[in-house]
Amino acid sequence: MQSSSLMEFQEILLPTIETALKASFEVHDFSSSAALKEMLAYHMGWSKNEDSAGHGKRLRPLITLLCTGAFDAPIENALPAAVAIEFLHNFTLIHDDIQDKSPRRHGRPTLWTQWGVAQAINAGDALFSVAQLTMLELVKTTDEAIANQGVRQLNQVCLRLTQGQHLDIAFESESEVDTQAYLTMIAGKTGALIALSATMGGLVAYQAQDRLALLSKFGKNLGLAFQIQDDILGIWGDSNTIGKSTASDIITHKKTLPILFGLQRCPEFQQEWQNEDPSPEQILHMAEILSKCGAQAYTRTQVEIYTKQAFDALDRVYSHKNAYTEALFDLTESLLNRDF
Amino acid sequence: MQSSSLMEFQEILLPTIETALKASFEVHDFSSSAALKEMLAYHMGWSKNEDSAGHGKRLRPLITLLCTGAFDAPIENALPAAVAIEFLHNFTLIHDDIQDKSPRRHGRPTLWTQWGVAQAINAGDALFSVAQLTMLELVKTTDEAIANQGVRQLNQVCLRLTQGQHLDIAFESESEVDTQAYLTMIAGKTGALIALSATMGGLVAYQAQDRLALLSKFGKNLGLAFQIQDDILGIWGDSNTIGKSTASDIITHKKTLPILFGLQRCPEFQQEWQNEDPSPEQILHMAEILSKCGAQAYTRTQVEIYTKQAFDALDRVYSHKNAYTEALFDLTESLLNRDF
Repeated sequence: MQSSSLMEFQEILLPTIETALKASFEVHDFSSSAALKEMLAYHMGWSKNEDSAGHGKRLRPLITLLCTGAFDAPIENALPAAVAIEFLHNFTLIHDDIQDKSPRRHGRPTLWTQWGVAQAINAGDALFSVAQLTMLELVKTTDEAIANQGVRQLNQVCLRLTQGQHLDIAFESESEVDTQAYLTMIAGKTGALIALSATMGGLVAYQAQDRLALLSKFGKNLGLAFQIQDDILGIWGDSNTIGKSTASDIITHKKTLPILFGLQRCPEFQQEWQNEDPSPEQILHMAEILSKCGAQAYTRTQVEIYTKQAFDALDRVYSHKNAYTEALFDLTESLLNRDF
Repeated sequence: MQSSSLMEFQEILLPTIETALKASFEVHDFSSSAALKEMLAYHMGWSKNEDSAGHGKRLRPLITLLCTGAFDAPIENALPAAVAIEFLHNFTLIHDDIQDKSPRRHGRPTLWTQWGVAQAINAGDALFSVAQLTMLELVKTTDEAIANQGVRQLNQVCLRLTQGQHLDIAFESESEVDTQAYLTMIAGKTGALIALSATMGGLVAYQAQDRLALLSKFGKNLGLAFQIQDDILGIWGDSNTIGKSTASDIITHKKTLPILFGLQRCPEFQQEWQNEDPSPEQILHMAEILSKCGAQAYTRTQVEIYTKQAFDALDRVYSHKNAYTEALFDLTESLLNRDF
């Protein structure tokens, strides 16, 4: 459930973000390969005759803009950073889909299934550069030092993302993964970029280092809670609301937090996990065993811990409240209590 | 044949470049995935117990440093840019090898054959960010505006590179490619990055726009001549000196400039090209047909045209000559008259 304040901001800001994304994309010279431009437009959900199905949630740029507005600073100054982060996120999705061999995203074929692996790797690389060039546009709304700081942080985050991704790929072929290693992985893969989204909101508002550190803490914990909530939905989510099969992470044998807990603490689950082709009944049974041995309770507790830390950081950084801070609190709550 | 001036510079500068590359790499925090760091070190030729076989020529950073020195400016100011461009070049090689399915480079297995496609894509992405972060180090040797400009140009070049790469991949499945489209492709794929190497040498020496444009012209033409010379060696090179089979580009059915000329102008070659599994004798015969119909002469003329343009630009930008300009002229000559 979303509060009216958050919904009002979304109504105004999502079209602003979409317009800025398109404008930042159109500025580049793709004259020697219109086909490459077309691939990127397709990935971003901007192909001709396309409804909104191709779009993502634009969650990260929304966080950046709200974090800037919450300092009573002009949110348009943050637009280049907000949009750059969304491009960066989309670059990682293009390469992730190849690495995971995912055939579909947002209900449409992924780039690599449509154009082949070689062209999709290359298109991702192009979008990475679009992200960097967009971040540099901060020179127009702030100054050169802030723009350079933005690019620096964006690439430092990428080094964390690629380390998280390295672990994620490596985990697939490892029989045992401990929960601490899993948390390190998602901190890199999901936490680092959401932390950047929040931090950039403060950086463009010329905030001091201690506040930027709190924003980073807010974003990181929000990202961790968000990802772990995803893990819960991947096993116990309602198939009607999440749009996947019930217990889909058990079906795809994905090593998420509740499953790692089960493998470490629950011999009965450990045994069932060996079954490489379980029936639908066996899958539901595995989800039940996990619940019984405490995996669901453990995972929910983790979500609560990270959510509390996110709220704490938010509360400390914004001692002065306004409509934007209210929307940020609402956004955090809505992401974590979601059942979709 | 190389002059003593160039050789002396290489003796001093190549170890300087290698040390700077390693120092710029070591500065990053790879604490959550040492294995990713190891992959990158392997690609760069820095694995333990490795002789120099893994190293590339470090041609691009050498050009940057020489271009700076040729303005009588301190070459150490250019080191971050020089090293960033070498990292960028290596990032493209990692992804190229996946896209081309090349099993070996510098006599060793490529990253993707050693660690799989998913990890290799990810390692390339990490090296891309290392390149960007290294370019930003220009703030220490120049200022924020130059660093900003360096990152901007690096990413604009990447957009040209990815367009060139898109065309290159697309050409593989096209039956007809015209020579103009081929030149556009190599201008993006090879010319743009060597143009950047030269331009950055002038930018860190605070040169005006007209000189930077001449440096870019020099680098672009050098890159084109270099690539087309490669095409000649790929058909008529001595297998002993180039380390590949004679007529290797005919064997791999690669659409290089002399081959495209043959397909357009030489019906006999066009016919032989249809043979999907030619014998060694037939391959040598195809190389002969190409020579007879004028493909070798045409291609050599192209090398000469671009070389002349490279020399012209060099001469105009450096009206005042010093030991560095001499080395630049020598380098250009040695690259274009090479038979290896």
